[in-house]
Amino acid sequence: MPKINQNYSKLPGSYLFSDIAKRVDRYKSEHPGNSVISLGIGDVTLPIVPAVTAAMHRATDEMGDAATFRGYGPEQGYEFLRETLAQQQYISRGAPISADEIFISDGAKCDTGNFGELFDVDNTAAVCDPVYPVYVDTNAMAGRAGDFMPDGKWNKICYMPCVKENGFIPELPKEHVDLIYLCYPNNPTGVAITAARLKQWVDYALKTGAIILYDAAYEAFITGDLPHSIYEIEGARACAVEFRSFSKTAGFTGLRCAYTVIPRDLKVGGTSLHAMWSRRQTTKFNGVSYVTQCAAQAACLPEGRSQTMDCIRYYLENAKIIKDGLSKAGYEAFGGENGPYIWLKTPASLTSWEFFDKLLNHAEVVGTPGSGFGPHGEGYFRLTGFGSRKNTIEAVERILTRI
Amino acid sequence: MPKINQNYSKLPGSYLFSDIAKRVDRYKSEHPGNSVISLGIGDVTLPIVPAVTAAMHRATDEMGDAATFRGYGPEQGYEFLRETLAQQQYISRGAPISADEIFISDGAKCDTGNFGELFDVDNTAAVCDPVYPVYVDTNAMAGRAGDFMPDGKWNKICYMPCVKENGFIPELPKEHVDLIYLCYPNNPTGVAITAARLKQWVDYALKTGAIILYDAAYEAFITGDLPHSIYEIEGARACAVEFRSFSKTAGFTGLRCAYTVIPRDLKVGGTSLHAMWSRRQTTKFNGVSYVTQCAAQAACLPEGRSQTMDCIRYYLENAKIIKDGLSKAGYEAFGGENGPYIWLKTPASLTSWEFFDKLLNHAEVVGTPGSGFGPHGEGYFRLTGFGSRKNTIEAVERILTRI
Repeated sequence: MPKINQNYSKLPGSYLFSDIAKRVDRYKSEHPGNSVISLGIGDVTLPIVPAVTAAMHRATDEMGDAATFRGYGPEQGYEFLRETLAQQQYISRGAPISADEIFISDGAKCDTGNFGELFDVDNTAAVCDPVYPVYVDTNAMAGRAGDFMPDGKWNKICYMPCVKENGFIPELPKEHVDLIYLCYPNNPTGVAITAARLKQWVDYALKTGAIILYDAAYEAFITGDLPHSIYEIEGARACAVEFRSFSKTAGFTGLRCAYTVIPRDLKVGGTSLHAMWSRRQTTKFNGVSYVTQCAAQAACLPEGRSQTMDCIRYYLENAKIIKDGLSKAGYEAFGGENGPYIWLKTPASLTSWEFFDKLLNHAEVVGTPGSGFGPHGEGYFRLTGFGSRKNTIEAVERILTRI
Repeated sequence: MPKINQNYSKLPGSYLFSDIAKRVDRYKSEHPGNSVISLGIGDVTLPIVPAVTAAMHRATDEMGDAATFRGYGPEQGYEFLRETLAQQQYISRGAPISADEIFISDGAKCDTGNFGELFDVDNTAAVCDPVYPVYVDTNAMAGRAGDFMPDGKWNKICYMPCVKENGFIPELPKEHVDLIYLCYPNNPTGVAITAARLKQWVDYALKTGAIILYDAAYEAFITGDLPHSIYEIEGARACAVEFRSFSKTAGFTGLRCAYTVIPRDLKVGGTSLHAMWSRRQTTKFNGVSYVTQCAAQAACLPEGRSQTMDCIRYYLENAKIIKDGLSKAGYEAFGGENGPYIWLKTPASLTSWEFFDKLLNHAEVVGTPGSGFGPHGEGYFRLTGFGSRKNTIEAVERILTRI
C-alpha cells in the first residue's frame, strides 16, 4: 500500500469563500426578493475585447485547416508571444529581459505553486500577512511549512505583517529566510510598492542570497510612477523570478494564460533556475493552447492593448468610487489606486466577520473578511472594483446610508 | 541561500529527440535536395475537425459578449463536459464512473506527472520497460526513483520488461511495489491489453494494496473487443486512477485538454485520493479554457465524434500500411492495430541506433530508436501512423526497396 503525502492532512480546510456563500445564501433565503450586491468578487466581469476575440477566431480557423494546423507547441511557449512580451513589457520599460527568459503557462497560480518544486523541503519561505493563500498552501503541501498552529500560522513559515502602520509593505526579515514571496500591486490590500522600497528588497536578497518570487499579476493597474516589474530594479536579475498573468490584465480568467520570467544569470549556488524550470516544464507540461497564445499576443498589440486598458480603467474607476465614497464617510480605506482592491479598516474595532455580517444584514453588500487572508488581515475587509458600475455606485450608496 | 531540489541534478540529459534531429540535420546538409520522410512523429497531423472548430467559434463569441462571458471556471472542469464524458466514455461501456469523479485538465502529461505529489517520497513505483519517459522522470524529480545507475535504470524503480516473448504485457512484479504505471494501448509498443490480462493486474493491486495509474490516452485507437477503460474491469474502482486525453483522440495536442478519473471510493489507508487531488487542483490549478472545454465536448457529441473517428481510422490505416508492408518483407512488426504505433524488431540483431542510421542513410526514412524508451527497448524501433498517407506509402516502399 502506498504511503500518502502526509502534508496534505495538515492543511486546514479552505472555507473562506464557501463560508461567505453560505451566509449570503442564508440571508437571501430569509429575505426573498431583496437584492444583494457583491463587491467581494475577485474575478473580472467585462467580456474579452474585440481585438482578442478576432485573433481567437483567426487561430481557430488556422487549427481547422491542414495547411496551418499546429500540434504540440514549444513547452516554453511560442516565440511570437515571448518576443512580444519581452519587447512590450520589459525592454520598453528599461527592464533587461529577453524572450528566451519568458515561460508561457496556463496560470500564475500554477506557476507560483509549482515553482516550489525546484527547491528542497528544507528552506524557509517568507510571506506577507495578509497574503494570497496559494503561496502558503503550496509550501505546506510540499512539507516546507511545518505544522499549522493554533494561532493560524505554520510554524516554519516566516510571516511578515503588512498593516496600515507600515503602509502594507513589510519590514525586512530579521531572521534567516530563503524564499521571499512578494506581490505588488498587492492582493488583498490593493497597495503598490515604490522603486525605492522594492530596491531595499532586492538589495536584501542579494546580500543574504535569498530568492524573491515576485508576483506582478496586477501590474497593469499601476497608474502612478511605480515599477511594473521587479527587473526595473538594478540587481533583480540575480535574485528574482517574476510571475505575470493575463487574467486580470486582459480578462483571461476563463481563457488561462500567464508567464514566468527567469533570468538566465539567476543561479542558486551555481545551479541555473532557468535550466531547472525548463526541465520541469518540458517534463510535466505541454504548453498552452495555440488559440490562447494568439489571444494573448493580440491583447499586447496596439489595438488589443488599447481595448484592454479601457477595461482596466473601468475597474479602477469603480475602485475610486468605492474608496472616495467610503473615505468621505469616515472609513479608513487603502489601495484601489494602483490595484483593483480596496482594503478597508473595519470601523469601531469590529472583527472582519462582524463587519461582514453588518454589511450583509444592513446594506445587503458582500465583501471579503480580511482575516481570511491571514492573522494580520483581522480588522480589515476587502472590496473590489470588478463589479458593474451601476452595482458599485449603488453598493456605496447603501453602505453610506444604511450602516 | 535556498537549497535546491537535488533530485534534478540526478536526471540524465533528455537527448533522444534532439539526437535524432541532429543526425537528420547532418544527413540533410550532406544530401541537399533529397527528401527525408519522418515516421518518427508522435504528434497528430490532421487539422481539428469542423464540428469542433464550430464549437470554438461559438465559445469565442460567448466570451466576447457581456451577457455570456465566463471568468474563472470550476477547477475540476465544467459539468457539461464531465457529464458528457461520464455518459459517453464510461456509463455507455458499463464502467461505473460519475461526472464528479472526472477532473478536466490541460494534459495527461501534466496529470500523470503531478499525481505523484499525493504520495510520499518513500514508495516504490513500477514501470513498463520500454516506457513513456514522463512516469520515470517525474518520480526521479520527486526523489522517489533513487539514483540513476550505469545500466540506464534508477535503483529504486521497479522495471517490468515488455518484450515480444511476453507480448509486451509485463509479468506481475515479484517484489513489493506501491504505484504501478500501466499504459494501454501502449506507447511505444502500440500493443493493447485484453480484459483478462488487465483483470490480473486489478486483482494483484487489490491483493497487495498497490495503486494502478492507468494511462488510456490512446483508447480511441482500439478496434478489437478490448477494454477502453480500466473501470470496465471489476474491482478497478478500488485500486485505479485513469488518465485520458483529447490529444490523440481528437487532435488536441495544440489545444490542450485531458482528464483524470478518480473514483470516490478509491482510498489509501482511509485517505481519499479524490479529496487529495481536488485539494491539489483547487490550490495549484485554475481550470481549462472555456473555449477548449467547449471544443472537447463537441469532439464527444455525435457529429464531432464521427469526424474525429474518421481521423483515427486514417492514422490506423497508415499504421496498417506500415505493418503489412514490413511484415510481408520479413520484418517482425508489433502493435499498430489498436494504437498508432508500430514496434519493429530490428533485423539482423542491429541495435536500435544502428537500424536508425541504416534507415536514414539508405531509405531516407526517420523513426525512433526503441532504446530511447528504456533498456528493454534496445533492438526495437518505433514507427508511427501519424504521417500523411502519401508519405507513409512512400516510406514503406523505400524501406522495402532500399534496405
